[in-house]
Amino acid sequence: MNTHNFSLNRTIEILSQTPSTLEHLTSSLSEFWTMNNEGKDTWSVFDVVGHLIHVDKTDWLVRAKIILAAGGDKHFEPLDRFAQLESSKGKTLSVLLHEFKQVRTESINELISLGITDDDLNKTGIHPKFGDVTLRQLLSAWTVHDLDHISQIARVIAKQYKEETGPWIEFLKILRT
Amino acid sequence: MNTHNFSLNRTIEILSQTPSTLEHLTSSLSEFWTMNNEGKDTWSVFDVVGHLIHVDKTDWLVRAKIILAAGGDKHFEPLDRFAQLESSKGKTLSVLLHEFKQVRTESINELISLGITDDDLNKTGIHPKFGDVTLRQLLSAWTVHDLDHISQIARVIAKQYKEETGPWIEFLKILRT
Repeated sequence: MNTHNFSLNRTIEILSQTPSTLEHLTSSLSEFWTMNNEGKDTWSVFDVVGHLIHVDKTDWLVRAKIILAAGGDKHFEPLDRFAQLESSKGKTLSVLLHEFKQVRTESINELISLGITDDDLNKTGIHPKFGDVTLRQLLSAWTVHDLDHISQIARVIAKQYKEETGPWIEFLKILRT
Repeated sequence: MNTHNFSLNRTIEILSQTPSTLEHLTSSLSEFWTMNNEGKDTWSVFDVVGHLIHVDKTDWLVRAKIILAAGGDKHFEPLDRFAQLESSKGKTLSVLLHEFKQVRTESINELISLGITDDDLNKTGIHPKFGDVTLRQLLSAWTVHDLDHISQIARVIAKQYKEETGPWIEFLKILRT
């Protein structure tokens, strides 16, 4: 497998930009753009930001520390993909964006404090679905997961104007995914 | 057709955030993320920002003014989707991001100065492929076009780590589009 593209610095570059990117993308938008979703059982912008907070608190770093621990059970807990429906209740998007910025800053500081070496990147934990996964794969997935949700947020916003674009939908891939 | 979601204010909300969103998303990234693309004949982050500058200068507003003109030829010029390969030459991403911010500010000021009324939104021009299109459809397509390229930029960046995520590709939709 080609893993020469991974570096911790590159990962931190991406993890560092996400809170401010989401703030600039969404904080000045009306609720028409941020509280609507793509249809039944899909997420609004508000839901996605809540999800990002939840997984930073419970998933990526927790799993990294299981991998790096000297011993103990190497199985990861399954992720609750719907936890934010409860934890975001009664909050505003502005509150969530602020919370995400704080949580992410703590995540990055803790990630750096782990002092991860090249050897550490090959250590493994046990994913509930995939089985053995390396720390390198986990940190890469965290990186891409941020970008996946930035892309999702752009798509959810775009979908609110789907009908309005008329024939242009043919040139606007984001409306057809 | 459902067009009750369109409003000029909503459109301006989206058009206004794009330059700063792209700046926060990309300006602190290394060239590994911003100068690589998704493979042969695809665009890098750098290429996409150049494209956004080009279409703001030559496409959306020019077409809006053709629609709003009291008379004259209502046909739109075809868009050159590759113009930025020439116009971006020798520039840095930082220069392009700054240029886009300036060009977009001018575009929004000009859009507002057109004083578009509800009646104007139903006026039409002739698209080289679609035939008759309304001003409402044009302005909606401009809005979604921004979001499409924000999503594309997130995808191009994500693809640089495609191999590194290992089995997680199954959960990361952005790597499979």
